[in-house]
Amino acid sequence: MEFTVNQIAVMLGGEVKGDGNEKINMLAKIQEARRGQIAFLRNPRYEQFIYITEATAVIVKKDFTPKKEVKSTLILVEDPYVSFTMLLEEYHKMISFQKAGVEEPCFIGKGSTLGTNIYRGAFSYVGNNVKVGDHVKIYPHAYIGDNVSIGNNTIIHSGVKIYSDSVIGNNCVIHSGTVIGSDGFGFAPQEDGTYKTIPQLGKVMIEDNVAIGANTVIDCATFFGDATVVREGVKLDNLIQIAHNVEIGKNTVIAAQTGISGSTKVGENCMLAGQVGIAGHLVIANNTSLGAQAGVSKSIVKEGQRLLGYPVFDIKEYFRSYAVFKKLPDLNYRLKELEDKIKDLVNHS
Amino acid sequence: MEFTVNQIAVMLGGEVKGDGNEKINMLAKIQEARRGQIAFLRNPRYEQFIYITEATAVIVKKDFTPKKEVKSTLILVEDPYVSFTMLLEEYHKMISFQKAGVEEPCFIGKGSTLGTNIYRGAFSYVGNNVKVGDHVKIYPHAYIGDNVSIGNNTIIHSGVKIYSDSVIGNNCVIHSGTVIGSDGFGFAPQEDGTYKTIPQLGKVMIEDNVAIGANTVIDCATFFGDATVVREGVKLDNLIQIAHNVEIGKNTVIAAQTGISGSTKVGENCMLAGQVGIAGHLVIANNTSLGAQAGVSKSIVKEGQRLLGYPVFDIKEYFRSYAVFKKLPDLNYRLKELEDKIKDLVNHS
Amino acid sequence: MEFTVNQIAVMLGGEVKGDGNEKINMLAKIQEARRGQIAFLRNPRYEQFIYITEATAVIVKKDFTPKKEVKSTLILVEDPYVSFTMLLEEYHKMISFQKAGVEEPCFIGKGSTLGTNIYRGAFSYVGNNVKVGDHVKIYPHAYIGDNVSIGNNTIIHSGVKIYSDSVIGNNCVIHSGTVIGSDGFGFAPQEDGTYKTIPQLGKVMIEDNVAIGANTVIDCATFFGDATVVREGVKLDNLIQIAHNVEIGKNTVIAAQTGISGSTKVGENCMLAGQVGIAGHLVIANNTSLGAQAGVSKSIVKEGQRLLGYPVFDIKEYFRSYAVFKKLPDLNYRLKELEDKIKDLVNHS
Repeated sequence: MEFTVNQIAVMLGGEVKGDGNEKINMLAKIQEARRGQIAFLRNPRYEQFIYITEATAVIVKKDFTPKKEVKSTLILVEDPYVSFTMLLEEYHKMISFQKAGVEEPCFIGKGSTLGTNIYRGAFSYVGNNVKVGDHVKIYPHAYIGDNVSIGNNTIIHSGVKIYSDSVIGNNCVIHSGTVIGSDGFGFAPQEDGTYKTIPQLGKVMIEDNVAIGANTVIDCATFFGDATVVREGVKLDNLIQIAHNVEIGKNTVIAAQTGISGSTKVGENCMLAGQVGIAGHLVIANNTSLGAQAGVSKSIVKEGQRLLGYPVFDIKEYFRSYAVFKKLPDLNYRLKELEDKIKDLVNHS
Repeated sequence: MEFTVNQIAVMLGGEVKGDGNEKINMLAKIQEARRGQIAFLRNPRYEQFIYITEATAVIVKKDFTPKKEVKSTLILVEDPYVSFTMLLEEYHKMISFQKAGVEEPCFIGKGSTLGTNIYRGAFSYVGNNVKVGDHVKIYPHAYIGDNVSIGNNTIIHSGVKIYSDSVIGNNCVIHSGTVIGSDGFGFAPQEDGTYKTIPQLGKVMIEDNVAIGANTVIDCATFFGDATVVREGVKLDNLIQIAHNVEIGKNTVIAAQTGISGSTKVGENCMLAGQVGIAGHLVIANNTSLGAQAGVSKSIVKEGQRLLGYPVFDIKEYFRSYAVFKKLPDLNYRLKELEDKIKDLVNHS
Repeated sequence: MEFTVNQIAVMLGGEVKGDGNEKINMLAKIQEARRGQIAFLRNPRYEQFIYITEATAVIVKKDFTPKKEVKSTLILVEDPYVSFTMLLEEYHKMISFQKAGVEEPCFIGKGSTLGTNIYRGAFSYVGNNVKVGDHVKIYPHAYIGDNVSIGNNTIIHSGVKIYSDSVIGNNCVIHSGTVIGSDGFGFAPQEDGTYKTIPQLGKVMIEDNVAIGANTVIDCATFFGDATVVREGVKLDNLIQIAHNVEIGKNTVIAAQTGISGSTKVGENCMLAGQVGIAGHLVIANNTSLGAQAGVSKSIVKEGQRLLGYPVFDIKEYFRSYAVFKKLPDLNYRLKELEDKIKDLVNHS
């Protein structure tokens, strides 16, 4: 990026104090900023840095009055942090969507349609009858199987693997190594001890505004016409396991290395910490919060609970129980002492 | 696929009632089926749907007598569910093996031999001296290192990475992103606090009929001539860690995110739930069942146990202990009360 | 490799007894060795094998006196095991660095510079302005984003994905499927229940002599100029999660499936077992040892502790508490009995 201070001030609705024609190509913290960069000052504890920074421009509060000379051009705004975050987001959007065009060699099958302003990296693979929306970025080594559909503005990072028939929404980001639509883990035990594969013929449906981290796996549903569903606004971290026929409700957030077993429905606006495990065929109520490493073996019916342990119960009670757990050898000893004392008492009475 | 109802009836050994020349190209649930699709009816609770379905054909029980008009052609069989499952499996086999031929560009090294009816997807990589059996499907971005051997009918999905010298059996399925043959985690501590790499020179051996999920890792054995071994019929889910020199016994099933540490031997017909951890150099008896998140730190000698906890013990006892764990603060309080009472009694006696 | 016995003896500083011109192309265990292979004998329990082995050469102790005829050429050294390990390491280095040259097609962007003796496998991708040191091996399907820097002698295995701006040191090994520099998991909750993405603009810095297993993920730092840092000599196993802004101290070793949450600083020379979880924004003291599946929710200040449980405490105390946990139903019963007895006593007194 390269903008003048004036252009940025217009974006932020701010007022320029100093040379508005100077050029900005990067954002930085005020204590680290250099020429060509823009920083912000909100916390008075950092005020010292504004007098020594090399930043070309600094975003400050409307009412900021310097106590010494300031070399940087100032942009005066209501809330410098909010303005800086806006700039960060713009910058992020710009670099996220800066890749465009086609790098060769890349593969595209028959009957596939591509929207406008697509990036297809070298060695990316788009199968047959795939439908790709506008502004989609398909990084190198991404694999898009047959009949997949991808909405607008979605970013598929390097090495993502999307199996046939998956449906991906708009404005999604899927990070490297994530696998979508692999076979659900379904095997029927036979009398001779072997297992017979249960064909996995369903698909995966990812709705809009979903973010998925790296090396996560989302299996397809078992039956024709069924789908493993990740609802709008869900945010999944890295190395998560989402089994066949699972449904993750709207705006639920799941941290790394958590696993959800087959056919479980997780509600909306839940927060699952890392390394949580949820058994299959359960229903998890909306607004449930599960602490790290929690294990869920029964459905959670009441909304809004904060739970921990295996199996889970109230997180505060867990910690209270755990405090006693740490003293169990002492408890055992005290109990033994009482038993002896009572034996004495009984003998003497 | 496209078959006539008559052809399907012959496959199932069933009798046709209606127009046997109609064409079928898909399977579906009776409540969702459309023209060109075949469904089944077993459960009487779904009988209502047979009178309204658009399905071209429905598989029904031999003795089924419609109460109203049925538009679909019927196929009469002994057990509609068994017949439908047969069709599902045939269909699954067909779509699993429908890819064939070579998509360009793809890479093949020197001295490698390929069986008949191979699929090699674009950007797939086959190294030197690789031996690939018949009907093997190598999807795009799969990597097969030097000297690897792959049996017949095995499917290697997109982005699977198989290191040099690995041996893969017949009828295996390996899902996207899985890594086979990476270095075992072996480092010798040095006096200065650093670690020296212990060369990992063994290989991985996957026997026949093994299914491996997505993003799982199976490390190679440490020593020359040794192998990390996954025996016949084993089913591994996603994101599993199998360390160097591990052996997984015949027909053992392991759920997602479980980890087995180096040199541990897991017996036959074991069932390991998700997120289980097993320490290194242990032996796990046949038919052992480990509950989710169980942690195993000692060998399990007795066969057929169901275990939970860390370290594991009998699953029923675990739940009994856990029930008391949840009441520990109360237990502690009751104990304190008794202590006070006894103090009183002792003082008074 | 192919060396004469004499050449190997020179490497080991050993003395040859027998035909030094024979050729060696492989190392093996004495009980399995064949023509053309070299083995070693240290443990007297294996002496029997030296009289029957087909090995072309055997490394033995200086003072070894055969009791029967030995067909193999002998190399006499101080410590046969140390010598054999030296050979193993040489062999490992040779096979690790034997790949060289460029396999086509592979991709390289603008402004990138490559050192000498590079291997770039087919379908490997090197973006723009990448700086690659000498003797670096970039296996097929590896992805190196723009502006990445890679030191000398580093091996990037097949399918590794390195996002833009990452910095990788010298003598590192990164195994297949590992992702470096993916977005940190940062989302700001909004009033309507949705989440807004916090742009992740920092990078990842991997110092020298770091080994990283397969399918591990290391997220980039959140802010410009910040980095998620893996210090010199760190060894990471498979399927590990390293979140944004984490720092892993020098020579720390982390086993498979462990996860470290955002902004946590792990000290030097720590040992983390498998499936450990550490919450965010903590500091873990040097030389901390965490047992398998441990959960850390508070900073660990005192160095050199061995900890277990969730939340963690002293590992020995954990096992003592756990021993009582297993007897909790019995404890509960004993407590109940005491309560009854005391009730009796109180009534009678």
